[in-house]
Amino acid sequence: MRVIGIDPGLRNLGWGVIDVAGTRLSHVANGVCVSDPAADLASRLLDLHGQLTRVLQRHGPTQAAVEQTFVNKDAVATLKLGSARGIALLVPAQAGLVVGEYAPNAVKKAVVGVGKAAKVQVDHMVRMQLPGVAIAGPDAADALAVAICHAWHCQSAGRLAAAVAGGVR
Amino acid sequence: MRVIGIDPGLRNLGWGVIDVAGTRLSHVANGVCVSDPAADLASRLLDLHGQLTRVLQRHGPTQAAVEQTFVNKDAVATLKLGSARGIALLVPAQAGLVVGEYAPNAVKKAVVGVGKAAKVQVDHMVRMQLPGVAIAGPDAADALAVAICHAWHCQSAGRLAAAVAGGVR
Repeated sequence: MRVIGIDPGLRNLGWGVIDVAGTRLSHVANGVCVSDPAADLASRLLDLHGQLTRVLQRHGPTQAAVEQTFVNKDAVATLKLGSARGIALLVPAQAGLVVGEYAPNAVKKAVVGVGKAAKVQVDHMVRMQLPGVAIAGPDAADALAVAICHAWHCQSAGRLAAAVAGGVR
Repeated sequence: MRVIGIDPGLRNLGWGVIDVAGTRLSHVANGVCVSDPAADLASRLLDLHGQLTRVLQRHGPTQAAVEQTFVNKDAVATLKLGSARGIALLVPAQAGLVVGEYAPNAVKKAVVGVGKAAKVQVDHMVRMQLPGVAIAGPDAADALAVAICHAWHCQSAGRLAAAVAGGVR
């Protein structure tokens, strides 16, 4: 399967695509969709929608996963982030994909092993699991972490199903 | 000009379309786009996007206005509302419209005359300004109020421009 992970943000929306074959992960592409902070919100969302749609068309993922980000600063900032997250969820749904959502702690636990890992540890472990890959910045690294988290969850679900069916773990 | 007003919400997204000729307002249509609370967030946003896109295709507004809603309950609720607001802004932008955003107090001030009006007063004044119209519920009434607010702001801007140009007020 081919997974796109998305780290939603209005200014920088990170994305990362990986191929998953059994326990083997390989990098396909990563990047950041950006919008102009000087533009009005509707234009920015339109811009992000167009860029992310082209990413999906180019790389053809079969699964999508989006990080559930929480912002506690203020309601205005949270509402704006929510609108970007709306685009991050809509675009893969428009491509016919089921979209998984993962809390930040779930992503950290899957990639680093603990839910309270620092951002720099997540970045480091993403680079360990995808050696030699040029990563377009911290938002793209977070997006690759979300994709890895989704792959890990699918594998766990697969192992569980096999165990329930009496298969070999 | 034909204005669509939108009151964004995830469960109920209200919309109302009015025609504006000078100071004369006339009702075109109103309604509510709904999404299934039991479905996952991405599916709900996809559903709202499809419904609202069809509303714009059917009624062909030339201007759009969206209410800036704030929620203070909790970050999760605000983030969800934000994702619905993202769709409310995206759909008219995709149709090539510039999207105005109005704070709730600006909408109340335009429709009732005071910024701290109760919801029931807004509803009443919308019905007064669009007599005999069947309104699909409180979210549709709010959406019509946003459309009226936008019409009022455009008229004020027009009067101001005429005054600056030495025209008759």
